[in-house]
Amino acid sequence: MLRAHQGIGVFYKKLTFPGVTKLQCQLSTAISGEPSKPSIKTSVPGPKTKQLYQELNSLQQAGSVQLFADYDKSIGNYFVDADGNEFLDSFTQISSVPIGYNHPELLNAFQDAHNLKALVNRPALGVFPSMDWPDRLKNVLMSVAPAGVGNVATMMCGSCSNENAYKCVFIWYRTKERGGKVDFTPEEMNSCMINQPPGSPNLSILSFQGSFHGRTFGALSTTRSKPIHKLDCPSFDWPVAPFPRYKYPLDQHQRENKKEDEKCLEQVADAIEAYKKKGNPVAGVIVEPIQSEGGDHEASPEFFQGLQKICKKNGVALIIDEVQTGCGPTGKMWCHEHFQLPSPPDLVTFSKKMLTGGFYFTPEFKPPHAYRVFNTWMGDPGKLILLEKVLKVIKNENLLTVVNKSGKVLKDGLHQLEKEFPNIINSVRGRGTFLAFNAVSTEVRDKINNNLRPNGILGGVCGDHAIRLRPALVFQPKHAEIYLDALRKTLKEL
Amino acid sequence: MLRAHQGIGVFYKKLTFPGVTKLQCQLSTAISGEPSKPSIKTSVPGPKTKQLYQELNSLQQAGSVQLFADYDKSIGNYFVDADGNEFLDSFTQISSVPIGYNHPELLNAFQDAHNLKALVNRPALGVFPSMDWPDRLKNVLMSVAPAGVGNVATMMCGSCSNENAYKCVFIWYRTKERGGKVDFTPEEMNSCMINQPPGSPNLSILSFQGSFHGRTFGALSTTRSKPIHKLDCPSFDWPVAPFPRYKYPLDQHQRENKKEDEKCLEQVADAIEAYKKKGNPVAGVIVEPIQSEGGDHEASPEFFQGLQKICKKNGVALIIDEVQTGCGPTGKMWCHEHFQLPSPPDLVTFSKKMLTGGFYFTPEFKPPHAYRVFNTWMGDPGKLILLEKVLKVIKNENLLTVVNKSGKVLKDGLHQLEKEFPNIINSVRGRGTFLAFNAVSTEVRDKINNNLRPNGILGGVCGDHAIRLRPALVFQPKHAEIYLDALRKTLKEL
Repeated sequence: MLRAHQGIGVFYKKLTFPGVTKLQCQLSTAISGEPSKPSIKTSVPGPKTKQLYQELNSLQQAGSVQLFADYDKSIGNYFVDADGNEFLDSFTQISSVPIGYNHPELLNAFQDAHNLKALVNRPALGVFPSMDWPDRLKNVLMSVAPAGVGNVATMMCGSCSNENAYKCVFIWYRTKERGGKVDFTPEEMNSCMINQPPGSPNLSILSFQGSFHGRTFGALSTTRSKPIHKLDCPSFDWPVAPFPRYKYPLDQHQRENKKEDEKCLEQVADAIEAYKKKGNPVAGVIVEPIQSEGGDHEASPEFFQGLQKICKKNGVALIIDEVQTGCGPTGKMWCHEHFQLPSPPDLVTFSKKMLTGGFYFTPEFKPPHAYRVFNTWMGDPGKLILLEKVLKVIKNENLLTVVNKSGKVLKDGLHQLEKEFPNIINSVRGRGTFLAFNAVSTEVRDKINNNLRPNGILGGVCGDHAIRLRPALVFQPKHAEIYLDALRKTLKEL
Repeated sequence: MLRAHQGIGVFYKKLTFPGVTKLQCQLSTAISGEPSKPSIKTSVPGPKTKQLYQELNSLQQAGSVQLFADYDKSIGNYFVDADGNEFLDSFTQISSVPIGYNHPELLNAFQDAHNLKALVNRPALGVFPSMDWPDRLKNVLMSVAPAGVGNVATMMCGSCSNENAYKCVFIWYRTKERGGKVDFTPEEMNSCMINQPPGSPNLSILSFQGSFHGRTFGALSTTRSKPIHKLDCPSFDWPVAPFPRYKYPLDQHQRENKKEDEKCLEQVADAIEAYKKKGNPVAGVIVEPIQSEGGDHEASPEFFQGLQKICKKNGVALIIDEVQTGCGPTGKMWCHEHFQLPSPPDLVTFSKKMLTGGFYFTPEFKPPHAYRVFNTWMGDPGKLILLEKVLKVIKNENLLTVVNKSGKVLKDGLHQLEKEFPNIINSVRGRGTFLAFNAVSTEVRDKINNNLRPNGILGGVCGDHAIRLRPALVFQPKHAEIYLDALRKTLKEL
């Protein structure tokens, strides 16, 4: 049992050479078992993938499937598909793989009998948590809590985390309206059972054009990425405001981009005012630190500082959605740490690389009654056990430093490529390895992304014409070089 | 490594005695390591639990927590708490533990290297599923699919499963309205981005008074269990109809209960008509085979047959929510199999004992485009691996037979107790071990449930005055006797 993994205990081989600094050593750390470069043996998708697609599509809508994977063979930054092709993975399961494939710390996590029992005896965490659950929350999730945001709830996924953050916000807002009273009128209790005000109040969450916050009905009412995500689904009448759309390079468009910030913030304030007037007040604003699915749109620290100011002025909660940006890819644990907000955000939601869903919140957002932010499982201890290992690896391997170093190599290289191919790509942007660039059209963008595959790169797209980079935190400068070489080759071949 | 589990490979000891039939043997199967009876050593909750509660409550709203558990020591049907008390568990984590605590099949599941890698390399299943994923779906989920419902999608939890079933229903309904066309007008594409019709249409899901379908905003708009579940959350204006409230014993109230069915069905038809007239047509009806959270209300096969007939007549989809009833506790894999529906239900949702969320659906509910019923993870292969083991144990240990046998002992015993204590409890009802009875008041009900604990039973409540039994599928007649003895003692002491 587990023999297949024996011998890879020293997965990350620390290499030391005379005259090489400690940091360089850490960054040149080799991942045992990783190929030295991509290797593409068949057409992509290959024959096995095509056959498997037919099988899966007979059971469900499989149109979104790109490749079938061999997760026994995938390793580190390399994704191996069903046809034996080895890709350098710059998309990592829609940005949800923190430390690469088959990391030994993760493979070993359930060798511990206590951890294994926590995995298979999944409790209703809101009713019968294990006796080590408070400690697990403290030692794992709270060890990386954003400064000043000292409470946490676990959930299952990003959508569920956002939905429950909204619930906390609505409960907080209504409790404020009641002057802090925590009992309900008979009218409220009766009306909510038929989905009518005042028990089911007209309250809204403001989100931004291009935002993505999930696909369940509450989350979907705040998602504004693409029509195909929203069509045919009933939706709450909730307000939307523009999110900055910057001109690049940033240092040559400072004045215009500052005006863009101001215009967007004005419209946030206007929407809050308008929805108050129409009897559907804004209780919360949700925002991604970098809009991801919608096209990798970034905004300045000043924009986020201004947004927080508007929220505070209007008694509106500020929810930062760090589902995609959280857990290190921007070079800090949480992307909003780049913004120097004058005070902590009210709620910060997470999922993806964090492996468990959930949200941090300040004490005023703790619901005053039990069973209001609640469900059967309330998360999954098995995921927290894996996250504990991930955080240990991030610390021990200095992965935030790796992200910053690799991110610099990537971004410098992308800037070089946008100079070499100005008629094809532009607008290189982002933080850490959380980077993106635009192609001149959707058609060209899709062609680049498809053609990257035979050149050994598994990539991702977002918005109308962006290619997004979402490598794991173990993506090293040498992987960045491989990515850049393959991209240059692809652009040349176009 | 894993040494703690060695030696419990023969967890279920098959005992054979001369003159005892095979079935009796199977039913007297002993679970290795299980105590012979409950053992309560401290007050409940004990001092350790009280201390842990303070710790947890400093991080989150912990008011719903009843006990902290020792999952290393919990075994089979016995839940061991932080204070060392050993309870016979008749509630099993809100009905979500299929084959008891620390079953060796589950503990061994990830000894297999391939399974372990599937667990730690959690993919975005909608984009990069593993090469064995189509087979896993076929061999595990489709092996127990309800007859005639041949498609399946995996999700994370019950709420998410219902929300996505609703999306499939809305997409199906609008596609019908378009005469089968699968392209969209510019008006639809633009309006959905601002949450307005026609892109975000006014369509509704009808649910029943007392129903529980989850707590995210779409699911919550169909949940009608208790005000505390719904207060302060904005809600869709969706219709509600009464669900039968029977008089017991059923065989003495056949005529009244039949009239109750007819009254409820009439109001379903009326609500469908009324919401059509007000421009918010009903696209789907969702119903639990036995209303659980809302008070364990059952309805006759004729009610469900009539409901299906109304749905078909009105072009409305019928969603059966088997989140709590599915996976065997009623003595059949799916509770709706008891209803002899003339044709298969359109969608059947599941979670809890199935360990993975998801829903079965007929082919017409397969969305015509990719990326509409989609999210990052789309379930979790690790849960399917555990479910595979659960289904194997259900088959090998004849657990549906055990459920029916234990259920008969329980129900006969409860009927006896309602005769012995007619001023305290009444209305014994349910199928298999999925049973309930009422107390004469909420106060008395809560007292019974609390007092069961010092007598060794961990129980659950639902609705206003019901106690619900939700043991695991490995709950045997001998456990039923222990439960009944403790309940008798509790009722006597009242």
